[in-house]
Amino acid sequence: MNALTGPDTPDTSTITAPTDGPKDYFVTRDGVRYAGAHLIIDLWDADRLCDLEHVDRVLRQAAADTGATILHGHFHHFGEGCGVSGVLVLAESHVSIHTWPERRYAALDIFVCGGCDPYAALPALRAGFTPGRVQLAEHKRGLSDAP
Amino acid sequence: MNALTGPDTPDTSTITAPTDGPKDYFVTRDGVRYAGAHLIIDLWDADRLCDLEHVDRVLRQAAADTGATILHGHFHHFGEGCGVSGVLVLAESHVSIHTWPERRYAALDIFVCGGCDPYAALPALRAGFTPGRVQLAEHKRGLSDAP
Repeated sequence: MNALTGPDTPDTSTITAPTDGPKDYFVTRDGVRYAGAHLIIDLWDADRLCDLEHVDRVLRQAAADTGATILHGHFHHFGEGCGVSGVLVLAESHVSIHTWPERRYAALDIFVCGGCDPYAALPALRAGFTPGRVQLAEHKRGLSDAP
Repeated sequence: MNALTGPDTPDTSTITAPTDGPKDYFVTRDGVRYAGAHLIIDLWDADRLCDLEHVDRVLRQAAADTGATILHGHFHHFGEGCGVSGVLVLAESHVSIHTWPERRYAALDIFVCGGCDPYAALPALRAGFTPGRVQLAEHKRGLSDAP
């Protein structure tokens, strides 16, 4: 990818780009070198999971709040009373959501590179879907001991 | 979602659908109840990561090999010599790829529900990108002790 220099706005005080050697776009943050952070998010006891337009709107707000730039979006409704699948392709990777309204459950992931903060998406998700419980896991993608 | 009954072809011998109570689409496999398996895949020392058409073709083959149905695809090239981002929206969730050819690195994830097998995507990925090393992690999404 070529977007790891990130947007203008987020706090990049702890991020340094490589200054010598061949050009690349991995980042170094707090002394650890990787491509970006990938959040796995499970929402339980959540609302409005079969409302396509609402899901679309909430996901775009959540993505924007990370500091990312949306390049493309696609949302699919599986039918009346059924769930929604949606993805946003970002200049900084992607966001996805898949919902099971019959279980009041939604599975999301948010993968953002560079100066973007995936955790900044959470307030919009909490406001939009009012989950009773949120489970999180994080992967640092591309983590390596190579210089 | 409404696709968790899965495609016709995969081995579903260990999968049971709920037979009573309200209709839902979670699956029970080997006694564990969840929405689907989500693979996090890192490819290192990989090839052809800046070839948009190749990446598109390999990802569609990998998705098809899981037994999934592709609903929508979008691939973005970040410019000459730069990486590619792509997503496929599936009836059974999604596949994504983000590549850093300058690091010979690609970050993928494959989330499939129902009877689909995300590990069945790996031969196509290995053949298409000839990675020297593959790192995997798996999340069972929607895992819960609720009945």
